Amino acid sequence: MAYPDAIQNLLDELGRLPGIGPKSAQRIAYWLLDSDADGAQRLADSIVTLKDQIHFCPTCWDFAEGEQCAICLDPTRNARLLCVVEEPRDVAAIERTGEYRGRYHVLHGALSPMDGIGPEQLRSRELMARLASEDIDEVVLATNPNVEGETTATWLARLIKPLAIKVTRIASGLPVGGDLEFADEVTLGHALTSRREL
Amino acid sequence: MAYPDAIQNLLDELGRLPGIGPKSAQRIAYWLLDSDADGAQRLADSIVTLKDQIHFCPTCWDFAEGEQCAICLDPTRNARLLCVVEEPRDVAAIERTGEYRGRYHVLHGALSPMDGIGPEQLRSRELMARLASEDIDEVVLATNPNVEGETTATWLARLIKPLAIKVTRIASGLPVGGDLEFADEVTLGHALTSRREL
Repeated sequence: MAYPDAIQNLLDELGRLPGIGPKSAQRIAYWLLDSDADGAQRLADSIVTLKDQIHFCPTCWDFAEGEQCAICLDPTRNARLLCVVEEPRDVAAIERTGEYRGRYHVLHGALSPMDGIGPEQLRSRELMARLASEDIDEVVLATNPNVEGETTATWLARLIKPLAIKVTRIASGLPVGGDLEFADEVTLGHALTSRREL
Repeated sequence: MAYPDAIQNLLDELGRLPGIGPKSAQRIAYWLLDSDADGAQRLADSIVTLKDQIHFCPTCWDFAEGEQCAICLDPTRNARLLCVVEEPRDVAAIERTGEYRGRYHVLHGALSPMDGIGPEQLRSRELMARLASEDIDEVVLATNPNVEGETTATWLARLIKPLAIKVTRIASGLPVGGDLEFADEVTLGHALTSRREL
């Protein structure tokens, strides 16, 4: 049987989300049909508001709601310590550990010649500009512990060291080949505190 | 760290959906942030449209987009065969088997004194009215093969048999204690074809 169009459209849209298969999409659709109209409207509004109000922080390239992100604006953060990550979700993962009080720089990817991602596709030029203009003592390279992340860390270390800035790499202890995003807080926190100089 | 409000609001709304934990919600939120604004708008629209356009079919109480649902309107379906299920999602599950060409009646629940669900909370009065006014030869009871579903089937069989209508129950073969919604097509199709008279 074909679903009514309004249900099928929602199933199609839900099916495009990461981690949502046909059965999950159906469960969510029927849950929404059973829920009050207000709840569904709030979900729809929160999706639209998200795209309206969130943009990139022009300093660190994390997501921000105001002009700059809350971390860049926070005067209690250590401005001399900079953590470089691949994606905004990695900022959230590190913040959850509570082990880090410096600032961030989001590359929006990692070097991956196979996927056509070179230095021009990353926010690495913006990183080098920050290192030239800000007073930074240490850069923590927290790219993913997989091939692309390690390559990116090695490449950045080579670029940054001539500036006489200390460059460190988060410790292994994370499962190799894994994703920072899925590490538990304790492991990720431990990897941060035992970071080593490159 | 606190997420920006617009992200946190979406995470809260996503977290209320069935099967979506904090990590899934975060993956979806970041996926939406990375996707184009059109895609997010389409998802939001499909949620609102769903609640606007879908209501209950006044005949079978499945979800319908027009006045009546597509199955009740379909002249090629066998109008003398009626399948009784607990929820609209069970109609979808049975339709996917391709083994059934009759019509449906959705009870919207099963008898469960513990949860305060008695005959008044179900669409059983509407079922009895259909059996009195329509020419029906057989009622297939396809409530879930768990305690509430079996109780409901036994109760309905007792109500319907005096009307000289054949009453059948889908075969066991489904894992007992399970949910119809999660059965695979083959098992559910087999359970339908080997239904037995009560």
